[in-house]
Amino acid sequence: MTELPKATMGKLLKEAGATRVSDDAKIELAKVLEEIGEEVGRQSIPFAKHAGRKTIKARDIKLVIGKDE
Amino acid sequence: MTELPKATMGKLLKEAGATRVSDDAKIELAKVLEEIGEEVGRQSIPFAKHAGRKTIKARDIKLVIGKDE
Repeated sequence: MTELPKATMGKLLKEAGATRVSDDAKIELAKVLEEIGEEVGRQSIPFAKHAGRKTIKARDIKLVIGKDE
Repeated sequence: MTELPKATMGKLLKEAGATRVSDDAKIELAKVLEEIGEEVGRQSIPFAKHAGRKTIKARDIKLVIGKDE
């Protein structure tokens, strides 16, 4: 399983306004974001295919999250 | 702004089944996950406060994403 860096998770939570963050919170956030990332990936594949590509591009990701141009 | 590692974004997309991933897709996924991570962080703060804590714990993150025990 891909691991998002714990330090970066802590930074994100601090940027959100947290003053203190436990280690288990960083690990939990990493899990959540990894799951979401994989789900976005899964949903982007048919969009790339639909556009006649084998390569996932930013446009596919944007389409998944409803940020399509 | 916190930066999620591009290599890890590529791995997540590959784990999701992508055969090829463009650089801009990795950057876009990093942006998406950073935004979601910060939003989860923002929403977790009142839960910690409600429990009489200043420290964000995994329990708060789980409550935000509806994975509460």
